[in-house]
Amino acid sequence: MGINLTNFLSSKSKNRKMSEFQDLDHIDGVSVSTTCAKLYNNDRDDLAMFYFRNGANHSTVYTQSKIISENIKWNLTQKTKKISSLLVNTRNANCFTGKQGYKSLEKIAEIVSQKLSEKQIEDEEHPKKIKPKEILFGCTGTIGETFPEEKIKNNIPELVNKIKYTQNKYIWMKAALAIMTTDTRPKLAMEECNIGNTKIKIFGIAKGSGMIQPNMATTLGYIFTDAEISNDILKKLLKKNITTTFNAITCDGDTSTNDMVTIFSTGEAKHSKVKNVNDEKLKKFDEALNKVLLNLAKRVVSDGEGASKFVTINVKNCKNDQDAKKIAFSIGNSPLVKTAIAGEDPNWGRIIMAIGKAGVPINLDKISIRLGDINIIQNGKISLNYEETLAADYMKNETIDIFIDAACGSKNFIAFTMDLTKKYIDINADYRS
Amino acid sequence: MGINLTNFLSSKSKNRKMSEFQDLDHIDGVSVSTTCAKLYNNDRDDLAMFYFRNGANHSTVYTQSKIISENIKWNLTQKTKKISSLLVNTRNANCFTGKQGYKSLEKIAEIVSQKLSEKQIEDEEHPKKIKPKEILFGCTGTIGETFPEEKIKNNIPELVNKIKYTQNKYIWMKAALAIMTTDTRPKLAMEECNIGNTKIKIFGIAKGSGMIQPNMATTLGYIFTDAEISNDILKKLLKKNITTTFNAITCDGDTSTNDMVTIFSTGEAKHSKVKNVNDEKLKKFDEALNKVLLNLAKRVVSDGEGASKFVTINVKNCKNDQDAKKIAFSIGNSPLVKTAIAGEDPNWGRIIMAIGKAGVPINLDKISIRLGDINIIQNGKISLNYEETLAADYMKNETIDIFIDAACGSKNFIAFTMDLTKKYIDINADYRS
Repeated sequence: MGINLTNFLSSKSKNRKMSEFQDLDHIDGVSVSTTCAKLYNNDRDDLAMFYFRNGANHSTVYTQSKIISENIKWNLTQKTKKISSLLVNTRNANCFTGKQGYKSLEKIAEIVSQKLSEKQIEDEEHPKKIKPKEILFGCTGTIGETFPEEKIKNNIPELVNKIKYTQNKYIWMKAALAIMTTDTRPKLAMEECNIGNTKIKIFGIAKGSGMIQPNMATTLGYIFTDAEISNDILKKLLKKNITTTFNAITCDGDTSTNDMVTIFSTGEAKHSKVKNVNDEKLKKFDEALNKVLLNLAKRVVSDGEGASKFVTINVKNCKNDQDAKKIAFSIGNSPLVKTAIAGEDPNWGRIIMAIGKAGVPINLDKISIRLGDINIIQNGKISLNYEETLAADYMKNETIDIFIDAACGSKNFIAFTMDLTKKYIDINADYRS
Repeated sequence: MGINLTNFLSSKSKNRKMSEFQDLDHIDGVSVSTTCAKLYNNDRDDLAMFYFRNGANHSTVYTQSKIISENIKWNLTQKTKKISSLLVNTRNANCFTGKQGYKSLEKIAEIVSQKLSEKQIEDEEHPKKIKPKEILFGCTGTIGETFPEEKIKNNIPELVNKIKYTQNKYIWMKAALAIMTTDTRPKLAMEECNIGNTKIKIFGIAKGSGMIQPNMATTLGYIFTDAEISNDILKKLLKKNITTTFNAITCDGDTSTNDMVTIFSTGEAKHSKVKNVNDEKLKKFDEALNKVLLNLAKRVVSDGEGASKFVTINVKNCKNDQDAKKIAFSIGNSPLVKTAIAGEDPNWGRIIMAIGKAGVPINLDKISIRLGDINIIQNGKISLNYEETLAADYMKNETIDIFIDAACGSKNFIAFTMDLTKKYIDINADYRS
């Protein structure tokens, strides 16, 4: 994969571009370690372990695909209140690997829990025994290949040995790199906020580049916070904020069998107790969580397979949320719209086509369409001021904003996508070779 | 467009390949003429007129897009029992052209009906006055550009002058070429059958290469027969047969604003009267019509933008027709499946992914997947005999057959599509330039 770590470790400026990242440092209660288990035939890290020495509350949203990977089946059977570790591997999706794929996870979980229990005895005043069911798995990569149980098992001792209790930006970067497949850039984001008078951190990493049209959750996204929030409240916060973030992006309209976004809360920041999801104290946290999720989701799109342009689709004034979302995704998933954007062609006829095929009622006499600040359609007619040369100039930007006003209600949706280039074909025509 | 007419005029063999065509010759009651109105800036024919000197019964299925072109609005208001002419132009879709686009059609219909009425007086024993509402329009090309009313109007006299009452294979070929946009090949098909003891012909031409996912009708398809069948029966026959033909194809999942498939029946073959759609006499005609429609639909796919492979997706044993269709189109529209096929990669994991995201119940313990004769999944497990090298060999074929047995019902659907190549991006990134 030829990724040069130092390329990603130089950003300090306040005005970060999307291609740059935020430095994540230490967060109480989370340890991160990575290693190379030779899942790819090279030296890149391909295993990442996240260890919660005192456990973590947690909640996850999963893919809505009817075919799910073995690790998601495993995760769905874990009903423990606290999670001790998340282990993520790349290269192999552990999907359609049958009973063997699931049994491999059982064996790996056995070793992880055993090694972590030993570490508890070494390091903790009051060591606890860590159980296999306290381990969550994230898997990503090719579907249908035998899961590399041995390679992963053999590397667990090293992952546990590498655990340190103070994290720095390098280890988070390594983790973000270790979970990548066809991604060309790691995705990290962070926010700080207050709960009461206590400062809280929210860190997030994600991966995802192809097979991305969210349906509940998408790709792999992991959020870590030192706040103390119950599983029930975490679930409500995640579900609410995923709609406008990870579920608002599409790269190619395909939905993975392995999608998951999990939030972990270590509770190490000792703030006043949060009573319920509507607790006033949670307001800033809620906003900050949305920012982290949106930041990560946008990074996934901007690194979408073959992407040369980042596209935001604002759909306004529909009858209901569903309609707005349908129009936004009909545009965002249209190969014809996306190739026109790649070709820097302001071919708005294709936007019209995509709106039409969404199958949603629209007020054709009042509909408006803009590209950036350029009015194309106003009140159902081509704008008198429309000049194609200006629109063609606009299309040369790296960031394209499409605005649709359906003029038949008050509900909105914003979707994010990228263009469809020859590079997408290159990447996917020989993904496995 | 650089199309060499002679390339398409040499096929006589019985075992025709898809890229070859069937010779259409004379059909009683239909006259065809074409001309170059300089709608493209070159010498290709871009206008085609179909004239029914004694009128024709007719029925049409249209796009289900919520945004429809002005010519479809016009056609939908024509309630005449018999149609006198169909005029098809390429280069301009007459969509989102507002009132001007519709008014242009009124003016063109006026001239067409006037010129054809004059021709009736010249040629017929009992001339009839042809009314503007007896004209249907087919338009295809770019959306949102001013409709070239003058250029078309100016060429009507020439189109009418060129009308001959005996047709040959050259004029049908010219018509099929004149309605093309990004198509690289004309699409023609024919069948003969009997109604009672009378021999009947069914001719068809079609165009379509991109913006193709059918929803009721798709692209432009025109069917001509000398049978005498009422509008009501034509409607039932067309609706029934479109489901498994034009509505079973997808190139890019996009739905045009201009799709229409029309059948015209001149009634010149004097057969015994057809009473209703279930009339035993219609059985052979029904079958022949299906063959013509399927033949044309397959030609549209095989000429899909950038296509290098023709893909058939057989989905069997679903709970209902809808489910089978959903799975077939989920596979047929998946960019990841289609790029894998382009790359000749037997990446069946992506087929699994596409089945999963269809959101349809499947029996995962009994599902089977085949590529041609190669068993991949049997009863939910990877086939013991599966060898990837054999599958990789199979993927080198120009024709790829995917078989899915969902094992949870008895309903089937067959969809047709092609692969997704870099050429698709080339064609669509600078379609208008």
